[in-house]
Amino acid sequence: MSGCRTVLLHRKAGRTLTVKPAILPGLAFVSVAVLLFSSPTLATENAEVHNQQESETLLVEKQIFRMDSFTTFGGKTIEDVKVGWEAYGTLSENKDNVILITHYFSGSSHAAGKYSKSDAAPGYWDSIIGPGKAIDTNHYYVISADTLVNLNAYDDNVVTTGPASINPSTGKPYGLDFPVVTIRDFVNVQKALLESLGISKLHAVVGPSMGAMQAIDWASAYPNWVPRMVSVIGAGESDAWTTAALEHWANPIRLDSNWKSGNYSPDKPPSDGLTASLMLITQNALTPEFFNAQGNMLGFNNLESKPLASINNHHSITTWLQQRAAARSAKMDANHLLYLVRACQLFVAGHQHNLEAGVDAIKAKTLFIPADSDLLLMPYLAQDVHKKLEAREMSSDYTELKGSLGHLEGVANISKQAVAIRQFLENE
Amino acid sequence: MSGCRTVLLHRKAGRTLTVKPAILPGLAFVSVAVLLFSSPTLATENAEVHNQQESETLLVEKQIFRMDSFTTFGGKTIEDVKVGWEAYGTLSENKDNVILITHYFSGSSHAAGKYSKSDAAPGYWDSIIGPGKAIDTNHYYVISADTLVNLNAYDDNVVTTGPASINPSTGKPYGLDFPVVTIRDFVNVQKALLESLGISKLHAVVGPSMGAMQAIDWASAYPNWVPRMVSVIGAGESDAWTTAALEHWANPIRLDSNWKSGNYSPDKPPSDGLTASLMLITQNALTPEFFNAQGNMLGFNNLESKPLASINNHHSITTWLQQRAAARSAKMDANHLLYLVRACQLFVAGHQHNLEAGVDAIKAKTLFIPADSDLLLMPYLAQDVHKKLEAREMSSDYTELKGSLGHLEGVANISKQAVAIRQFLENE
Repeated sequence: MSGCRTVLLHRKAGRTLTVKPAILPGLAFVSVAVLLFSSPTLATENAEVHNQQESETLLVEKQIFRMDSFTTFGGKTIEDVKVGWEAYGTLSENKDNVILITHYFSGSSHAAGKYSKSDAAPGYWDSIIGPGKAIDTNHYYVISADTLVNLNAYDDNVVTTGPASINPSTGKPYGLDFPVVTIRDFVNVQKALLESLGISKLHAVVGPSMGAMQAIDWASAYPNWVPRMVSVIGAGESDAWTTAALEHWANPIRLDSNWKSGNYSPDKPPSDGLTASLMLITQNALTPEFFNAQGNMLGFNNLESKPLASINNHHSITTWLQQRAAARSAKMDANHLLYLVRACQLFVAGHQHNLEAGVDAIKAKTLFIPADSDLLLMPYLAQDVHKKLEAREMSSDYTELKGSLGHLEGVANISKQAVAIRQFLENE
Repeated sequence: MSGCRTVLLHRKAGRTLTVKPAILPGLAFVSVAVLLFSSPTLATENAEVHNQQESETLLVEKQIFRMDSFTTFGGKTIEDVKVGWEAYGTLSENKDNVILITHYFSGSSHAAGKYSKSDAAPGYWDSIIGPGKAIDTNHYYVISADTLVNLNAYDDNVVTTGPASINPSTGKPYGLDFPVVTIRDFVNVQKALLESLGISKLHAVVGPSMGAMQAIDWASAYPNWVPRMVSVIGAGESDAWTTAALEHWANPIRLDSNWKSGNYSPDKPPSDGLTASLMLITQNALTPEFFNAQGNMLGFNNLESKPLASINNHHSITTWLQQRAAARSAKMDANHLLYLVRACQLFVAGHQHNLEAGVDAIKAKTLFIPADSDLLLMPYLAQDVHKKLEAREMSSDYTELKGSLGHLEGVANISKQAVAIRQFLENE
């Protein structure tokens, strides 16, 4: 299997849609929620806003990596595993310029570039991945893969294996017969992909949120592969607080009568439960500042007449949240969400008996970039593992994304830390 | 209707259960979650821990206030309204020593004292209400009433009218035929109760959380009644963020197949949905620090073998949260929770077209006491209305509860601000 074909689409600098300044913040507010929680092809709103600084655009294509058989961290076997992947830049002759990007909970391998010129928006971290950018594809071969149990199971640009996949031994979807998978399993599939390309060491692994969990698990599990690790809005482990908080994302799905203990038919999925889950995820990833600005745009007023008239009516802000979640749910699978929740709940860097043991194994230089307004994976989580590394006299840097988007700062506003990321990657 | 009979039960100072210091913090951690979210009679754990400073205990009894007919803020009529109430201290001859206590979302009128000597725990704010305490029942007549649609509909010590009540015109529970009610309706029922006692002015109104919403609505709607108002862990309005956040409490109930659009039978209620809702409420009201201490006590480890073995198993922290929520749900009504959510979503002090207009009407001296670690009603909400009052050159004080219990600081640790409350109430 060869490296990804990468094409540069040159654009004249400044040849971007002119957006009236007065409405730009509004558009930006609407778009960020889409960016994080949509399936990748829905993340196409507000393209021009995000691309204003861009002078050239990567064109990328999705490829597929297959394994006849994969054994999970929990000791179960899955046959015929396949995941999608994409890459940007050129693999060097001695294959020593590889940066692995690991994606967030509702994300995919589409980290940068566009599938075609007409795509409205590029991949989620396009602001820092590309020619001349912080993760410079003129120097690095940047690769990203869809995880197992990827949330966007019905997105044409996502390839994944999970409960919605056909179980070869029954000819029907696995449902809850699919084994529990962990962050380590996502890492192990990525490692097999890299090995299939003849790669045996990374320049760095970099990821946001659930991607940061994968990044630090890489550093602990395979320290000889990982000289540099960047954790954006991440954690060293899922502590009791986070493990419990994640359960509230699963509860609405389990309550939906269409869920049927995971054995729903594809034409009657638990959409209401999945929508309720996405509503909560969206709120957890954002902030009062974001919601109140959104409320202002909607003309939100707590004494709106409809919700006063009937318990079955809703406020404008609730309807906005519900409708966007419902639209996003169309390409997502509810069981996949349950499995992603569990993977995150079971996370501890290194997947040993505790975090201390996991940190002991790390050899990488590390950079932690939490967001100061993050209410989902609060900065204390990154600080905790950063301090554990410092206590071991490891080289570990720490800086915060400052802003009002909460957890979403790590995706929508990552370019604020472009310089820190660039310098960290250039460091020997 | 006469004032409540109040009996003082004298206890020797220091005659309290001896609790080993090593387990005291653990007990305290377990008990605070119970305190806020349990039905009142379940809030009896850890009694001795809370009472250690106490030298005498109020004995109180529940009374019932009835109205033949009540017209809601939304213009609907409810017949045969009844709510429970209790009082501590003695009403002065000219009835000018009344302090009204307004309760929180899952609370009741049981703010202080015990129903009998053998009660394990007193009312939720017993640490600041009683003879010689911050809200001194040697001086003040302290009164508290159950709200309409009180969550603890099946608690013997709660009397309320809501969707679970029998609709006189059908002989069956109202279900969703019950009209939407607002914080103003809770206030108006309290006002009718006070008027039935010949009271026409308060010394102060004081409440935590949803009780703080009632307190400031009192100050705005009936400014001539309210010379002093204390808002603990409160807000001036439910902003877009809070309105959306509250909806996640309602979603699990609506998803439960037993809910049946609110027409469930009392012997087959939507318990799973109600339990999921209470799990989320509990987490929203607490903090990482609390959950991680609880996790330590449970021996929580993210790589526990059960949740790795099956997607249908759960981590110890999740099971702990689920079991406590399920136990608490037994005396609660799911439709009542939906109506409480809506009352809070519709809240703006004064219930006029916006908060500015509501603040304009306030004449009271005010004291705001948010909790610095509160993740549910964050301090910015209290700061906002406090600043609006200061901008009008009103007398407004602001101080914070410092601690690790989040929102729950305002209930479990209110005694930290006993001095500020006492001084504020003594102030002319």
